[in-house]
Amino acid sequence: MNDITAAIAGLKELDETVTRLGHVAALLEWDQETYLPEKAIEERSNQVAMIMGLHHEKVVDPSWESLFVELGYDGGGGPDGVDEIDNAFLRESYKRWKKKAKVPKRLVEEMARVTSISQAAWASARKADDFTAFAPHLRKVLDLEKEYALIVNPDADPYDTLLDEYEPGAKGDEIADLFDGLAAGLDDLLRKIQSGNRPPSSFLEKPYSVAKQNEFGKIVQQYMGYDTHRGRLDLSTHPFTTTLGPDDVRVTTRYDENLVLSGLFSNIHEAGHGLYEQGVGRSLRGTILADGTSLGIHESQSRFWENVVGRSRPFWNKWYPEFSRLFAENLETVDVGTFYRAVNQVRPSLIRVEADEVTYSFHIIIRFRLERALLAGDLTVEDLPEAWRESYRDLLGITPSNDADGCLQDVHWSVGLIGYFPTYALGNLYAAQFTRAMENELGPLGDLVADDRIGKVLGWLRKNIHSHGRVYLPGELCRRVTGAELDPGYFLDYLNAKYSEVYQPS
Amino acid sequence: MNDITAAIAGLKELDETVTRLGHVAALLEWDQETYLPEKAIEERSNQVAMIMGLHHEKVVDPSWESLFVELGYDGGGGPDGVDEIDNAFLRESYKRWKKKAKVPKRLVEEMARVTSISQAAWASARKADDFTAFAPHLRKVLDLEKEYALIVNPDADPYDTLLDEYEPGAKGDEIADLFDGLAAGLDDLLRKIQSGNRPPSSFLEKPYSVAKQNEFGKIVQQYMGYDTHRGRLDLSTHPFTTTLGPDDVRVTTRYDENLVLSGLFSNIHEAGHGLYEQGVGRSLRGTILADGTSLGIHESQSRFWENVVGRSRPFWNKWYPEFSRLFAENLETVDVGTFYRAVNQVRPSLIRVEADEVTYSFHIIIRFRLERALLAGDLTVEDLPEAWRESYRDLLGITPSNDADGCLQDVHWSVGLIGYFPTYALGNLYAAQFTRAMENELGPLGDLVADDRIGKVLGWLRKNIHSHGRVYLPGELCRRVTGAELDPGYFLDYLNAKYSEVYQPS
Repeated sequence: MNDITAAIAGLKELDETVTRLGHVAALLEWDQETYLPEKAIEERSNQVAMIMGLHHEKVVDPSWESLFVELGYDGGGGPDGVDEIDNAFLRESYKRWKKKAKVPKRLVEEMARVTSISQAAWASARKADDFTAFAPHLRKVLDLEKEYALIVNPDADPYDTLLDEYEPGAKGDEIADLFDGLAAGLDDLLRKIQSGNRPPSSFLEKPYSVAKQNEFGKIVQQYMGYDTHRGRLDLSTHPFTTTLGPDDVRVTTRYDENLVLSGLFSNIHEAGHGLYEQGVGRSLRGTILADGTSLGIHESQSRFWENVVGRSRPFWNKWYPEFSRLFAENLETVDVGTFYRAVNQVRPSLIRVEADEVTYSFHIIIRFRLERALLAGDLTVEDLPEAWRESYRDLLGITPSNDADGCLQDVHWSVGLIGYFPTYALGNLYAAQFTRAMENELGPLGDLVADDRIGKVLGWLRKNIHSHGRVYLPGELCRRVTGAELDPGYFLDYLNAKYSEVYQPS
Repeated sequence: MNDITAAIAGLKELDETVTRLGHVAALLEWDQETYLPEKAIEERSNQVAMIMGLHHEKVVDPSWESLFVELGYDGGGGPDGVDEIDNAFLRESYKRWKKKAKVPKRLVEEMARVTSISQAAWASARKADDFTAFAPHLRKVLDLEKEYALIVNPDADPYDTLLDEYEPGAKGDEIADLFDGLAAGLDDLLRKIQSGNRPPSSFLEKPYSVAKQNEFGKIVQQYMGYDTHRGRLDLSTHPFTTTLGPDDVRVTTRYDENLVLSGLFSNIHEAGHGLYEQGVGRSLRGTILADGTSLGIHESQSRFWENVVGRSRPFWNKWYPEFSRLFAENLETVDVGTFYRAVNQVRPSLIRVEADEVTYSFHIIIRFRLERALLAGDLTVEDLPEAWRESYRDLLGITPSNDADGCLQDVHWSVGLIGYFPTYALGNLYAAQFTRAMENELGPLGDLVADDRIGKVLGWLRKNIHSHGRVYLPGELCRRVTGAELDPGYFLDYLNAKYSEVYQPS
């Protein structure tokens, strides 16, 4: 073993422990959301804090620095003769170490303290529809986020630094341009849709047995290729996907008798995330690279399955016979075409998490523009509610009558997630662009679904996206897979083609 | 804060982390037995090993030694002015530190390696009924256990040192005397029983719905006072109780449609363990003292509920109406007296875990005598199978026709649990002696059950046993609670009174 190999092996050993501690923390959190007895919550947060403390200690262990020095590595190109994977390993582990070592403990603790209080303040402010009660907390959070960003990178726009945590390499200006184009295209489409025929959907408002929803959800997850020998499905208040080990990727869901689509598409969405994590290449197992390369790419996988596959006509041609048999009491007189149109209803609404495929991105564009303005100081916290109402009026043509359904609806800002929202919309764009590349190689996706060649679809995603984990940054991955930069045109084309069929002009 | 207070506070801070790491390991293990995806098992053992490694590091942290030195504490009496609980804290934490710091890492690793191989060898030897394949592994385990015992305490009988891990303060000679008296008394009783009328029980061999077994199990656990806001019930291959935090004491069970009593009494047994852990006093929360004081005392709690309460006539007078309604298809023509006698059948058998209340202790006495002789070198490993057969012939009047149902039936020795078995029988003895003390104070237990004053029973156990955690060693606890040393007479009196009614002479 030469010096370079030995030093990299030393770094990988450190990383193995960091990864493993992260998985232990993930188990503590998974259990907290699924099975924890109600009175155990306080001690559970102490347990998580202890493990995350050990995780942090290991991330800033002095051995990282000495090994990076030994390699002469400073975040640029790797040493000669190091392969692509090891280069990516150096890049990602250096970036993590550098950032964590730079940020003073004082600030980390202050952020934890402030966001914990702020989240509680947000919850009660939303309940009481009282933005002024939340405003001072949001100001503090914004100040700390900005301070954090300037410590991590004093030379960059703070918003870009925060964005980089979730979408490495992305820039606020570029996203602003992408979103401008997206907004214009969506606006045109929405006008066409609103002049079309509204599909009937009263049958979706009937009660659907939760046990049968669960039965169908499991069948569809299995059809997608989600491996229950390396994962499992449980119930939680908010659906999520979490990785507890290379062979332990768990998903959760929730069912509501009166919201059949919510549980169904949550099952598909989370299994889409799960497939990404389960598909990481064997050579990356248990390392910092064994993860999605960005939240945007992760979201592209969940939304590909949820929307591009799960809300498609060929999918329902295949599954509606079974689905309508399970829920015969509600669907006996509903044909597949009617059902398909009903699951693709488009209607501007105030609440992001209830939005359809077409209007969803507007909710994100609004949040992106507002959080960027807040961080830059171009918008004051006290002006946020009015700016929110104006944005909804402009983009969606509707206005919330209160702040609970307005700028208080999401938890993200209260816990310091600034720069996180855009990744939701990027997921839609990536999904459409990846789909086009897949179709160029395998033929129309609809035919693959209709001909029961769904395994080919997963195979393509595995080979081109999942297996690479974090080896390629999202921008590079997009170029490798699609031969182009991210472009909202693919998503707009996809939506236009689909919705011109769903909503025929009246 | 004076120096003594400060030093004790320092020790408690160290202990808090040790305890918390133990709880995290307990979650990893609980999840492994309940919900872990099958392919995740290998990485889970790495995760447990990592956490137990951190736990060990913290147990032997040099700060322990310097703080004990500062206090002038060497395991004897505590410093002046220190209260009972802090004295117990010093005693237990010193003992743990001393032992762990003394045993070389080499030996700990060797024991882990050898027992892991030995357990696998035992499993296949039992399957193939091939004791000679297991014999060399058992020899190695015995050698290592002896080496370990002599390092921990070079001046003591190695068996006593091992026993002390599970039943602090107990001595092999004293247990041998107790067990001699117990064996003689049980022998007399068994002869009487065998000349009595065998109760009918064919209705127990019918299928009992697993869902209804679970429903009834939960009702009974709630009746006992097991708090599901601070615990939960799940399924696992082998039932167990585990503590994941001061407010998180979980139990597991298993159900078999064809073995209704197995699931039922496992529910009661584990909830008995759970009540002990849930009942630890608030001032001991999150410390080394927040646990049962010995396995024998722990087993006294599970067996008190399982046998003394759960197999009693007043219990079934109360619960049989509901139970027989749930399983009307099997029990319509069975009256409560017949059912009560059936759940108290006595029959010498070869398998410990299937034994009844009367013959169970024989299985333990045999294992205790044999493991002591093996460790002392008075019995060679190769002679074990024959010695086993002889013991069963002598004490139970039956002989296994193979070693799989003989000396290969239990996992314990293969994993190095020497000195563990006696605690199962001590549990029966403690339970009977505690019951007498309780009745002296509260009146006959049967009346408490019949009059729906079961809360009084739990209250007495909480006050006298549970709340003290590990503050008193088991011998001291027994004297405090019952005013006497442990004496098998109480257990024999209890059995004689009960079984003279169940088995009337023919």
